[in-house]
Amino acid sequence: MPSAAATETPGPETPGPAPSGRRGRPGYDQQSVLNVAVEVFNRHGYDATSMGILAENLGISKSAIYHHVPSKEDLLALALEQALGGLESVWEAPETKEGTAEHRLEFVVRSTVRVLTERLPFVTLLLRLRGNTETERRALERRRGFDRKVAELIEEAREEGTVRSDIDPRTVSRLLFGTINSIVEWYRPGGSLTPEKLAEDVVAVLFDGLRANS
Amino acid sequence: MPSAAATETPGPETPGPAPSGRRGRPGYDQQSVLNVAVEVFNRHGYDATSMGILAENLGISKSAIYHHVPSKEDLLALALEQALGGLESVWEAPETKEGTAEHRLEFVVRSTVRVLTERLPFVTLLLRLRGNTETERRALERRRGFDRKVAELIEEAREEGTVRSDIDPRTVSRLLFGTINSIVEWYRPGGSLTPEKLAEDVVAVLFDGLRANS
Repeated sequence: MPSAAATETPGPETPGPAPSGRRGRPGYDQQSVLNVAVEVFNRHGYDATSMGILAENLGISKSAIYHHVPSKEDLLALALEQALGGLESVWEAPETKEGTAEHRLEFVVRSTVRVLTERLPFVTLLLRLRGNTETERRALERRRGFDRKVAELIEEAREEGTVRSDIDPRTVSRLLFGTINSIVEWYRPGGSLTPEKLAEDVVAVLFDGLRANS
Repeated sequence: MPSAAATETPGPETPGPAPSGRRGRPGYDQQSVLNVAVEVFNRHGYDATSMGILAENLGISKSAIYHHVPSKEDLLALALEQALGGLESVWEAPETKEGTAEHRLEFVVRSTVRVLTERLPFVTLLLRLRGNTETERRALERRRGFDRKVAELIEEAREEGTVRSDIDPRTVSRLLFGTINSIVEWYRPGGSLTPEKLAEDVVAVLFDGLRANS
């Protein structure tokens, strides 16, 4: 939410005290514009959100937004980068490169839940994309790339004999992502359920099921 | 999809050969209007769908739609009834009234998946509701009633010692519905995965997990 002190000075002629050559102005840097924009995109839908609605929610003028970012689609691209960058960084950890496929899969599930809780509004935006613009389609292609790597890991664990083989691996992959992705619909950070406990719960339910003593 | 023979005769003056006093006209009965309407609601969103868009997709005039149903919100109510009626009928089966809580919960999960696959577009509509109209809010309240009964059954199975107690029952309930409800996002009837096998897979993954030999 914008501070009450945010002014409606029009136009980007005053670059403000941005220290490092980054675009920015007093009260807002690009990241805080992005945080508000993502929240508004998730509330109204990206297509239905105009720069006017964004400006209203930021409490600044439209031209002040253009000072931070050249277009609505660039805002979307920056927001999606935060989701996709976080998800893709999971694969840089050494835990995804060594050990059994079972352990690597558990690590990826746990890390995905962590990224999802840490970057909740950004991943929510990614999961709700319709694919109407080029930016959306590029993001969906990167998301499919992430999903494919998980599917390959499931396949590997299945061949290794650690993941059950009585279910089509595509169904396993769908149910796994269904469980993980649904978290954005209900998880609220700051409550009694920490991201760490949630990640542990998801791994426990997905790998060992709900049944006691299984 | 409307047949090419559907004509654009305006107005409800020709009641057509509806046999039993039900509203209807040649080529369409209320159920087929509903089937098309739900598909259009799911594609564009309920709010964004006008009676004009519906008429275009049905290949009939707006007044011909009013012959079948008095308003867009009535169409929504009829469509949601098909989803909610199906879900609520799960609890009428004797299997929900006798036996261990574990077996009753398994039965409810299996039956819910079956209703979901049999009435896929209707349940999809229900799961995507925003709650902007009175009809939507009433439907969401009925959906919450269904969810509460499942949550009570989870609680019972936990007390019985058949469902794991190291996870908050609210989290269990959220993950269970996350897994089940995500099916609407990817399941397509008529493929190699039958509704029966899917229901079996969901019960297997939810209760015993992905791990082999668990």
